[in-house]
Amino acid sequence: MKILEERIKSEGLVLPDNILKVDRFLNHQIDPKLMDQIGAEFAKLFKNDRITRILTVESSGIAPAVFAGLHLGVPVVFARKHKSLTHNSNVYSADVYSYTKQVTNQISIDERFVNANDRVLIIDDFLANGQAVLGLLKIINDAGAMACGVGIVIEKSFQDGHKLITDRGIKLESLARIKSLSGNQVTFVK
Amino acid sequence: MKILEERIKSEGLVLPDNILKVDRFLNHQIDPKLMDQIGAEFAKLFKNDRITRILTVESSGIAPAVFAGLHLGVPVVFARKHKSLTHNSNVYSADVYSYTKQVTNQISIDERFVNANDRVLIIDDFLANGQAVLGLLKIINDAGAMACGVGIVIEKSFQDGHKLITDRGIKLESLARIKSLSGNQVTFVK
Repeated sequence: MKILEERIKSEGLVLPDNILKVDRFLNHQIDPKLMDQIGAEFAKLFKNDRITRILTVESSGIAPAVFAGLHLGVPVVFARKHKSLTHNSNVYSADVYSYTKQVTNQISIDERFVNANDRVLIIDDFLANGQAVLGLLKIINDAGAMACGVGIVIEKSFQDGHKLITDRGIKLESLARIKSLSGNQVTFVK
Repeated sequence: MKILEERIKSEGLVLPDNILKVDRFLNHQIDPKLMDQIGAEFAKLFKNDRITRILTVESSGIAPAVFAGLHLGVPVVFARKHKSLTHNSNVYSADVYSYTKQVTNQISIDERFVNANDRVLIIDDFLANGQAVLGLLKIINDAGAMACGVGIVIEKSFQDGHKLITDRGIKLESLARIKSLSGNQVTFVK
């Protein structure tokens, strides 16, 4: 997605340890017009997949997910993150390890909001090691629903997440695919 | 806002201790079309206030805030919540006590994303005791910006938040105002 790549080039900050900071328009300050365009693009990419529900994880996934939901005409559910391992019988849950923060969070979704009839699209802001997506896939599986696709705003293609998802035969669409962040430069996959 | 009151009546759950659960459309599962209508309503209510930026708090404030931002044509910034009191010189922060969870969180916003030229609109999903709004008002004050309005999706009018905001002379618009939740019934302010 050209317009997104241009924003990453002009407003993204490359920090040490392969960190790309895009808090000017995606995950702290949000550009609503760009999010609307991103939502429309996801809707175009998944329009034939008969999606019934979108799942994401709080907080940065919410903005792109709600616009995708608006354009696809389906409800959006965001998984909540918890530090503690509280067990609640009315939720589906999964453990998600963050390599960046080196902490394991539990994510959970109320069982009323994903069920065996659902064809689910997962939306998230970043894909790196894919742990958040794997957690959502576990929840979808526990609910007996079908994972029909994964839509990512920015993919770090040099990390494992892409392969972990496509190896399962799941359709993955990333709007910007980053090949490298070395030398403080953003290089996209051609 | 008629359509919102109807959704609260039909899909809201009243729990003990004056808790109103609206997780079917607002703060766990989200109805994107309703959020778009809510955003349009906020834009109408604050269209003459020359708003330059919207502030909210993660996570449930994000969806109504981004649609308000889309309709007003301004960026949205969500404050992050932290358990720990880490001090960072590049952020504005405030302590916010949650009466529901009986815990104090620190909220913070990067100083690049609110400044002395800003005319700020605060958007949030719920107003009860007003502690989150007061925290954002402190941040706006610390940044030298101007607080031009507060837009709330659901206000519990029987709690202190409404008075705390209007006593400061700040324009407050709540789309649904709840007078009482007693007897497991939602009664709106006429």
